[in-house]
Amino acid sequence: MLGKAKLLKVYLGESERYKNKPLYQYLVLWLKEKGVGGVTVSRGIEGYGQDKVLHTARLLELSSDLPIILEIVDLAEKIDPLIPQICSIVPKGLVFSLDIQVHKYGSKQE
Amino acid sequence: MLGKAKLLKVYLGESERYKNKPLYQYLVLWLKEKGVGGVTVSRGIEGYGQDKVLHTARLLELSSDLPIILEIVDLAEKIDPLIPQICSIVPKGLVFSLDIQVHKYGSKQE
Amino acid sequence: MLGKAKLLKVYLGESERYKNKPLYQYLVLWLKEKGVGGVTVSRGIEGYGQDKVLHTARLLELSSDLPIILEIVDLAEKIDPLIPQICSIVPKGLVFSLDIQVHKYGSKQE
Repeated sequence: MLGKAKLLKVYLGESERYKNKPLYQYLVLWLKEKGVGGVTVSRGIEGYGQDKVLHTARLLELSSDLPIILEIVDLAEKIDPLIPQICSIVPKGLVFSLDIQVHKYGSKQE
Repeated sequence: MLGKAKLLKVYLGESERYKNKPLYQYLVLWLKEKGVGGVTVSRGIEGYGQDKVLHTARLLELSSDLPIILEIVDLAEKIDPLIPQICSIVPKGLVFSLDIQVHKYGSKQE
Repeated sequence: MLGKAKLLKVYLGESERYKNKPLYQYLVLWLKEKGVGGVTVSRGIEGYGQDKVLHTARLLELSSDLPIILEIVDLAEKIDPLIPQICSIVPKGLVFSLDIQVHKYGSKQE
């Protein structure tokens, strides 16, 4: 997976669930099963999306639905066919992609 | 907001303030008022910028000024006219943009 | 550092060490010594890479090796010659780059 590849970013809410699981955990396992190269999940502290409702980690709002960000990396040939399925699993989220140049993946080197 | 769009990233310090508010919270509300499509804020654990001062979350340095990252997504037509204002609100930060391909935004699907 | 520049992203494990230091802290100091413009480090809550081992921050797994993400920004002329060294310091990680448009860096403005 060196050279031209793709980064797919998915933004969703921490409280969203799918098949009795947090949606982001479901997605990570689903991507792993599909053999996608690498996935990293981060939690934001504040944000809003299409519904313009602000989610925040400020004091006294501990139960709020914080943003979750997935960064998914693989060749375009691997990622592109999965995008429609990812979009249907993430009904309320934001999904976008961009081209990247991979210099190292695991034990191989440019 | 499907197809070609723009990701604007803004890096600033958690302790920076603007009009009696943390700067990043001011920015999120300002972007929401301007009708910008989506914003996600994350907090880093370490970093440095132009002044080459290292900010870190290591033990015994709890009060340090951690990096805050804003990810702002919308069409270029929406984001480009706001960039000069964002740059003047963020005097010490880093602001950059890149082109993205949006596959899903809220309830719509590619 | 305004106009066309480069974002280099490095993904590694929080528990990886190099020369008696957490690897990510070593890398940040090394990049600062090399005069690289800006670096921001974030910690993810879950992820997997080439070995397909899932690292997660879920309950009862507090000691797990969480993902660390470095975002490194400078001109391509500054970053490109450092990529082979970064790749050799990060034996198990993912390293990729993309072109960005810098609108502000520190006290200067577009």
